[in-house]
Amino acid sequence: MPVKVGIVGATGYTGGELVRFLMHHPEVELVHLMRLTSEEELPLEQVHPNLRQFGELKCMPMDEIKLAKDVDVAFLAVPHGVAMSIAAKLLDMDLRVIDLSADFRLKDVATFESWYRTRHNAPHLLEEAVYGLPEVYRDRIRDAKLVANPGCYPVSAILALLPLLRLKILHSEHIVIDSKSGVSGAGRSKTTIDYHYPEVFGDFKPYGIATHRHTPEIEQELSYIAGRNIRVTFTPHLLPVSRGILTTAYVLLEEDISASELHEAYKQAYKNEPFVRVLPIGVEPRLKGVIGSNFCDVNIFIDERTKCAIAVSAIDNLAKGAASNAIQNMNLMFGLDEKCGLMIPPISP
Amino acid sequence: MPVKVGIVGATGYTGGELVRFLMHHPEVELVHLMRLTSEEELPLEQVHPNLRQFGELKCMPMDEIKLAKDVDVAFLAVPHGVAMSIAAKLLDMDLRVIDLSADFRLKDVATFESWYRTRHNAPHLLEEAVYGLPEVYRDRIRDAKLVANPGCYPVSAILALLPLLRLKILHSEHIVIDSKSGVSGAGRSKTTIDYHYPEVFGDFKPYGIATHRHTPEIEQELSYIAGRNIRVTFTPHLLPVSRGILTTAYVLLEEDISASELHEAYKQAYKNEPFVRVLPIGVEPRLKGVIGSNFCDVNIFIDERTKCAIAVSAIDNLAKGAASNAIQNMNLMFGLDEKCGLMIPPISP
Amino acid sequence: MPVKVGIVGATGYTGGELVRFLMHHPEVELVHLMRLTSEEELPLEQVHPNLRQFGELKCMPMDEIKLAKDVDVAFLAVPHGVAMSIAAKLLDMDLRVIDLSADFRLKDVATFESWYRTRHNAPHLLEEAVYGLPEVYRDRIRDAKLVANPGCYPVSAILALLPLLRLKILHSEHIVIDSKSGVSGAGRSKTTIDYHYPEVFGDFKPYGIATHRHTPEIEQELSYIAGRNIRVTFTPHLLPVSRGILTTAYVLLEEDISASELHEAYKQAYKNEPFVRVLPIGVEPRLKGVIGSNFCDVNIFIDERTKCAIAVSAIDNLAKGAASNAIQNMNLMFGLDEKCGLMIPPISP
Amino acid sequence: MPVKVGIVGATGYTGGELVRFLMHHPEVELVHLMRLTSEEELPLEQVHPNLRQFGELKCMPMDEIKLAKDVDVAFLAVPHGVAMSIAAKLLDMDLRVIDLSADFRLKDVATFESWYRTRHNAPHLLEEAVYGLPEVYRDRIRDAKLVANPGCYPVSAILALLPLLRLKILHSEHIVIDSKSGVSGAGRSKTTIDYHYPEVFGDFKPYGIATHRHTPEIEQELSYIAGRNIRVTFTPHLLPVSRGILTTAYVLLEEDISASELHEAYKQAYKNEPFVRVLPIGVEPRLKGVIGSNFCDVNIFIDERTKCAIAVSAIDNLAKGAASNAIQNMNLMFGLDEKCGLMIPPISP
Repeated sequence: MPVKVGIVGATGYTGGELVRFLMHHPEVELVHLMRLTSEEELPLEQVHPNLRQFGELKCMPMDEIKLAKDVDVAFLAVPHGVAMSIAAKLLDMDLRVIDLSADFRLKDVATFESWYRTRHNAPHLLEEAVYGLPEVYRDRIRDAKLVANPGCYPVSAILALLPLLRLKILHSEHIVIDSKSGVSGAGRSKTTIDYHYPEVFGDFKPYGIATHRHTPEIEQELSYIAGRNIRVTFTPHLLPVSRGILTTAYVLLEEDISASELHEAYKQAYKNEPFVRVLPIGVEPRLKGVIGSNFCDVNIFIDERTKCAIAVSAIDNLAKGAASNAIQNMNLMFGLDEKCGLMIPPISP
Repeated sequence: MPVKVGIVGATGYTGGELVRFLMHHPEVELVHLMRLTSEEELPLEQVHPNLRQFGELKCMPMDEIKLAKDVDVAFLAVPHGVAMSIAAKLLDMDLRVIDLSADFRLKDVATFESWYRTRHNAPHLLEEAVYGLPEVYRDRIRDAKLVANPGCYPVSAILALLPLLRLKILHSEHIVIDSKSGVSGAGRSKTTIDYHYPEVFGDFKPYGIATHRHTPEIEQELSYIAGRNIRVTFTPHLLPVSRGILTTAYVLLEEDISASELHEAYKQAYKNEPFVRVLPIGVEPRLKGVIGSNFCDVNIFIDERTKCAIAVSAIDNLAKGAASNAIQNMNLMFGLDEKCGLMIPPISP
Repeated sequence: MPVKVGIVGATGYTGGELVRFLMHHPEVELVHLMRLTSEEELPLEQVHPNLRQFGELKCMPMDEIKLAKDVDVAFLAVPHGVAMSIAAKLLDMDLRVIDLSADFRLKDVATFESWYRTRHNAPHLLEEAVYGLPEVYRDRIRDAKLVANPGCYPVSAILALLPLLRLKILHSEHIVIDSKSGVSGAGRSKTTIDYHYPEVFGDFKPYGIATHRHTPEIEQELSYIAGRNIRVTFTPHLLPVSRGILTTAYVLLEEDISASELHEAYKQAYKNEPFVRVLPIGVEPRLKGVIGSNFCDVNIFIDERTKCAIAVSAIDNLAKGAASNAIQNMNLMFGLDEKCGLMIPPISP
Repeated sequence: MPVKVGIVGATGYTGGELVRFLMHHPEVELVHLMRLTSEEELPLEQVHPNLRQFGELKCMPMDEIKLAKDVDVAFLAVPHGVAMSIAAKLLDMDLRVIDLSADFRLKDVATFESWYRTRHNAPHLLEEAVYGLPEVYRDRIRDAKLVANPGCYPVSAILALLPLLRLKILHSEHIVIDSKSGVSGAGRSKTTIDYHYPEVFGDFKPYGIATHRHTPEIEQELSYIAGRNIRVTFTPHLLPVSRGILTTAYVLLEEDISASELHEAYKQAYKNEPFVRVLPIGVEPRLKGVIGSNFCDVNIFIDERTKCAIAVSAIDNLAKGAASNAIQNMNLMFGLDEKCGLMIPPISP
């Protein structure tokens, strides 16, 4: 019996990616596509030109009752602040929920409310929500009713640093994380001057310096992994491409460790991970290696002159940074092969 | 004594280009920058990041009285339908006007009203307005009070075809014009999904097939040059770059003519034109050769198997296709050296 | 029993695409990857970063004997002039061959030798070779031993025009075909200044005007479809993207026909084609709709003022324009479902 | 009397930019354009499409005697290792030399030879050579015979950090410098697969991690400014644009200092600099603000949670990062207004 799936927010970029991956998932039946912003039915090909002629998918107005009746699991690809109420209702009606917004990622309500400047109206669910990064929480995800799918930048930062933090050789609690993201991260509906084609073409710039909302999420998870308090200075940049995040993270080390020992630690840490590829020593991750796929390419370098480790990761922000990672969570939640429907190779050149 | 200049619509892309060229024009004093859409004063660098620290230019709310009092000529870089009323008022107050909108380009009111779906409220000025393409109307521009600066596509199409049409060897009245334009042609304020960075990145498509408003303008001018009725099938395409138009035009020829004869006719036709560069025989015009400048690169090819001539031109849509061409007109209107302030080389790579 | 497949030229872009599609083809076993240019074994991930960790594929030096012994069909993704000899040898050893070069596309040896400026050393195979466009030659492909996979531009031109030519309402034998291709069409090994990143970024230009080698191929096939002699003026342009071809073709019509009648003819012509999508009336094909997939999006427009039909198509030059179309041929040749392994949706944004 | 100028290496990207800026420099006569790689005369437009029809410039084979006889100053835009010998000869013949290679930037021969893996054959000139960053060495440049024009990354790093280092509030000697450069930085002649258009399009990656040759140059100059030993971990990245470098640098601070105090220190430090623009507080530098110009936009941010200062700069790597900065040096060396010929606004959008 296939898993019956509903997607809320199917008209956004993340929603489109969920459909792209799920429509050929051998164990899934795509039952409902919904959206919040309109009362009208919309042929999906009108917003996602790549999904033409694939089963004539239609996007319907949001209907929680119908969802609860017809599906096993709902993916919420809607803005933060909106997802929390929907999730609460769907959980009440016994649906399992994979929330791709930020609403259930932070364990501390006060931190959420201060960084997101909005009240949390379902704080009782924070404890129950599982942070949906299989590489860290695989076992807890299997039994979760509510999965908080990670932010795109956090996925890239955490997977870049995880094996290093486990080594417990950090010189201090401070880590510099310099990330660069394609513009699709801004979403489909935010068509402001900031993302107007002539403005971004040939341009590059940082944004949200020292204030980006993914900062506390990164700190929460890196601290958990390291077993100690971690503070990050996180700077996102807008890259003039559509897809992809490349993160370069800098960590001063306490102890001498060779490049090959570090590299070996990375290979060990990820040896059973189906979607994290530790590149050969010295090979830099690049966006081309992961676009369109659930893969995360990582590598670790060391500047021996300064005892600074440089961790680098590359993901597709819409895939491993959102949609396909959410499906990896779904596979775990429903006892499927974790790789099911996700072994689509990246596209290059 | 410098020419005193006002710009209406200085916050758009064309307005920004007018400022970029004029602020170092040795015979110009930039007196007023205005805009229609707001009552507030705006430091220009807030919209045009390249114009920072250049004299601390400020953009003021529109004030026709002030304009008329302080300047010799006004550039109107505002939407069609809006320019006509402003132009009429300014002309009444004895200003000379260079209108970069479409309002005074078409000689026939009915044609204007049918293609632009708006009433023309200053039809009495159409006769007086001079079509501002110096390569065709140089002498009339000198004495003009009202210059209708050409559309960007028409500049590229007309300059590509002018020498060929003068040869009077066309097989028929029908010409195919296939044009490709950078996204800045859509303007700065139209930040819709069509020009959202992730949508245009890596994409390419035609638009406005058989319905684009530059069609009657191209036909009017090509017919004038050819001395006979010309009909064009014009297809614009959206090119994933910020600037530049490349036009490829196809004309079936009546008579045998060699590639070198055709090329020679082009060189003769443009030998005194300071801004039209006929490339060496066989060399294709490319955007890189003209970006940032008032130059138009052209060349002519012939497919001897089919007796089809292929005319190609490249311009910067914001420069020779709008702002710098308007300044070339201004130079003519005020008896300045036509090249004054415009001999800025293109930028490449 | 799976079809056993060998790829010659697996290190090029087309070779990489063949691997990307075939490695998850449910009825295929990828037995040998080979290349001509070296004696060394090469891990495929060193040239194709997207194919990392997928079965640790290795590319071996060319070995015809081994191929003949181990596989059922060989894909030749090697330069024209080279493929013809290899194909002849492999056919002699009873392999079926799908040649992605130009060597067997033109039926007339003299035409081949004059456009490609090289002697054909296997002209006896030209008669036997089947032009591998399933939308035209599906039945003959099923039984073919040697399939000449079409050129990328011809696929886009033929599929844009096929239904129109069948209507037999052309005004003349002359058709204008204006095509725009991403740079991957130039291949992986031709790393000249023409394809150097800083040169192509922000640029656009035509090339090979009136001399491109795909011209006779397009004429041969359009003439076959139209049942009369067709002459094309074909102008390719270099588009600053990696993938995709968009073709805009112009045909003067003899008879009056409405836009909706034309559109209906297109829908009828392609109603059973799994990979050709006729878009809704008025919707322009765009690259984003097809990138990464075997789909070809087409639409037909009419300029009623000039009685000129404008046919537009979009394909991924490396997929429907090369690799995945070749696999569609393979599916036919081996009695598989034509869609097998190819229903991968395009990727967007 | 104009300054008579010769350019060696005029066919490269930096050489082309020198010509673009110098051909309208009011106090310069461009006497000789030369190149090393050929014995033939070459019309410059064959390599630089933007320089067409500007005085029909020709590039000649290298001829040191002719240079010495005819010019006052030579710009060397040739590879490192090659410049040192040419510079030595020209200085012997009493020319002043502005070397854009790396050959005279490092004061310590051993450091040079270890990072560049080549012997220095003019070490006696290192003492005499002045590091050509006017913002640091203005007075010494005026009298210099040999100016070592800085590397593109060092310009961006030094100008980002200079005011901060002068404050002497660093927590440690370690600084993280994360830089992103357009592909033109790789030069015109290095047309390898790494810079092949389909490879770089849509891609992004770091390179030369912990090993890039600009590292010791950055350390040398930052140490000089700070008055103490500085060690940097420097990571360059390849940005999929043609031009521009954006640098994000991270410095842990010893003392509490507010964002506005830091910003004020930057404004003070650069208040007399004609080409360094400190942006308003909170405004991020971006490439669009500087492309095509000699400007460097900088700003300083602080992450108060971590006491980490984030310094950001944007330059055009071919302009302030090479050619126009070299001309700024020339202006100083010849007693001209430092801004002469350089007040060309950037180009945007």
